[in-house]
Amino acid sequence: MTLIVQKYGGTSVGSVEHIQGVARKVRGFREKGHDVVVVVSAMSGETNRLIGMANEISQRPVPREMDVLISTGEQVTIALLAMALTEIGCLARSYTGGQVKIHTDSAHTKARIEAIDSENICADLKAGHVVIVAGFQGTDDQNNITTLGRGGSDTTAVALAAALNAEECQIYTDVDGVYTTDPRIVESARRLSKITFEEMLEMASLGSKVLQIRSVEFAGKYNVPLRVLSTFEEGPGTLITTEELESMEQPVISGIAFNRDEAKLTLLGVPDVPGVAAKILAPVGEKNIEVDMIVQNVGADQTTDFTFTVHRNDVDAAHEILEVVASQLGAREVRKDAKICKVSVVGVGMRSHAGVASQMFETLATEGINIQMISTSEIKISVVVDEKYLELAVRALHQTFDLALEDAS
Amino acid sequence: MTLIVQKYGGTSVGSVEHIQGVARKVRGFREKGHDVVVVVSAMSGETNRLIGMANEISQRPVPREMDVLISTGEQVTIALLAMALTEIGCLARSYTGGQVKIHTDSAHTKARIEAIDSENICADLKAGHVVIVAGFQGTDDQNNITTLGRGGSDTTAVALAAALNAEECQIYTDVDGVYTTDPRIVESARRLSKITFEEMLEMASLGSKVLQIRSVEFAGKYNVPLRVLSTFEEGPGTLITTEELESMEQPVISGIAFNRDEAKLTLLGVPDVPGVAAKILAPVGEKNIEVDMIVQNVGADQTTDFTFTVHRNDVDAAHEILEVVASQLGAREVRKDAKICKVSVVGVGMRSHAGVASQMFETLATEGINIQMISTSEIKISVVVDEKYLELAVRALHQTFDLALEDAS
Repeated sequence: MTLIVQKYGGTSVGSVEHIQGVARKVRGFREKGHDVVVVVSAMSGETNRLIGMANEISQRPVPREMDVLISTGEQVTIALLAMALTEIGCLARSYTGGQVKIHTDSAHTKARIEAIDSENICADLKAGHVVIVAGFQGTDDQNNITTLGRGGSDTTAVALAAALNAEECQIYTDVDGVYTTDPRIVESARRLSKITFEEMLEMASLGSKVLQIRSVEFAGKYNVPLRVLSTFEEGPGTLITTEELESMEQPVISGIAFNRDEAKLTLLGVPDVPGVAAKILAPVGEKNIEVDMIVQNVGADQTTDFTFTVHRNDVDAAHEILEVVASQLGAREVRKDAKICKVSVVGVGMRSHAGVASQMFETLATEGINIQMISTSEIKISVVVDEKYLELAVRALHQTFDLALEDAS
Repeated sequence: MTLIVQKYGGTSVGSVEHIQGVARKVRGFREKGHDVVVVVSAMSGETNRLIGMANEISQRPVPREMDVLISTGEQVTIALLAMALTEIGCLARSYTGGQVKIHTDSAHTKARIEAIDSENICADLKAGHVVIVAGFQGTDDQNNITTLGRGGSDTTAVALAAALNAEECQIYTDVDGVYTTDPRIVESARRLSKITFEEMLEMASLGSKVLQIRSVEFAGKYNVPLRVLSTFEEGPGTLITTEELESMEQPVISGIAFNRDEAKLTLLGVPDVPGVAAKILAPVGEKNIEVDMIVQNVGADQTTDFTFTVHRNDVDAAHEILEVVASQLGAREVRKDAKICKVSVVGVGMRSHAGVASQMFETLATEGINIQMISTSEIKISVVVDEKYLELAVRALHQTFDLALEDAS
């Protein structure tokens, strides 16, 4: 008997019929002799319905109360799924985040899991129950309800898989795996049968919205094998694992990721003295605005230009902060640009292959695409370009790195 | 500074606009210097929506999961009301039943409150917050979510008022008080300015659906002054109190209650030996079916006829049980009749006035209404008659006991 943790997203549980379908799927795993813990999201549309009511009342609803409100979405799903399983002869028991209990910090609407009590769950599994857990939620040390932020149900699933030492954590969604890039942009994009955590992390954070980034971090950290599969089609999906591919044919690049959700902010003419970067970014961080790419160029005149990207939703708030910082530091000017996109090539093969960067830049140059920012890590190279070039850049790079070829594994 | 506990029902919080209206009402009480604890129901329609989904999945949904499901209704309301209060400058904090915490037994879907921890609430009140509590729910000693059954929010409010030693417990609803009888049946029905707990208990349990019976019991037991008022109109409502009216003009009868929700079951020809009543009713009670009126007549032939009433929803289940009991006891026949109604006259004045019963029976006889069952208590007399006579009986009795006269108080 192996233990599997499964997570079904909002579309997978979007109606009573879909919930009944999930119940039959889960029963199939029980019949094969597996213990199953199921993590569910709110029925699709429900979270937005709740947020809609909150926004009718307030433009900035109290975060504590927002969590009380939206955590009900998952609570409805766990109850309905437990009923559906019982109805088809499967013992089942539901748990809210607070009942498990899933301990989080107190950062309402974007809390982090600190610990999980697995006692109740283990007792229920032993007694032959399917255990159903509300994703996306927990409680802090004052017993306040918290939520983990959008996509947090993935994180709940992985954290439970880690705590319970599960064989595999399966993320059921409406796509059948992780692709070399978005098939809506490149028709020949191909499903990857395996990908490493590091690659997935870069793919997810760069905008391949299959999995929430925190869940991949978690899975990597605790070495939980993670599999992305379709709720609606049979198939092996994509396994995310620590093993690097061993085949001779291992591709240098696994995929092309992109992101249209960012905006760029630039401080021009900042006096080039130590500590400037911290002075710029600290007040941004204090407002809980996440900064992605950061580039600093030293200019000729003892000043420097400092550029970074944030989520588009945060750009106005960040801009306000920067205006203050600019006058404090004596910077010349603040510029913002929301019409950008980020395109990245990702692959563990890069480690042992030189020349990926130049191949990437040449491809873009050939297409006449100007690069505004560059940022690199061991396994990815990202560039910021004008958003109008997004599709062109992704298609050209997919071609250059031969990603349409059959997976060697 | 006095502490008031207020309860707003589903219609009062039926939309975002209504919730905002409640927030303004509550702020008014804060501005007058009161501490306020608010108990809310689910938005009207929400509980039925949730039950509808459960019934799509199962004809008999698991009670534990039913409670997980329907308790979300009140949780949505507390969050929205807390946001609405904060938005208009009133500090507010919401609590689910489990967060308060409200301890109940484990009888899912009809749990009873056992204790209330008021520590958090007191601390919040002290800090100047309006405290908002989800009605109708609690948790048992295993931290399972429980609900108190329909109308349970009233009970939550009264229990909180008792635990917090509140000045008054105000139940806001869509009617402006308790009437001598249903104004839809008797046009001249009159709002009572005061009524005793005992009378209210008889009125509520007999079908004047203003307040949940358990909440009145609770209020009487802990001597919590209870006031029924309209959310939508100004007015003093009806105060439910331990004081009996002292006026010379005190009416003998306070009101005429009625109930169409019952059905009658009769066991004919039961051998008349000690212990028979218990043998009949024990298996009915075991199935959690509540029995209301019970009448037993000894017949001529060493056998007895045993009749009782249950809620119409339970009549088929009770009938099944009786068929088994009948064959065990050697009874002749089981009969059921759902086409009945119960009409009652209620009043503490009865205690000191003889002749109320005969006045009642004479009135019914004059109208040609046959009485099927009679049951009496110190302050009420109930009869079961054919349901077609309901309006006629209520109107005639309202007239006989002069209830349309001006309230003397």
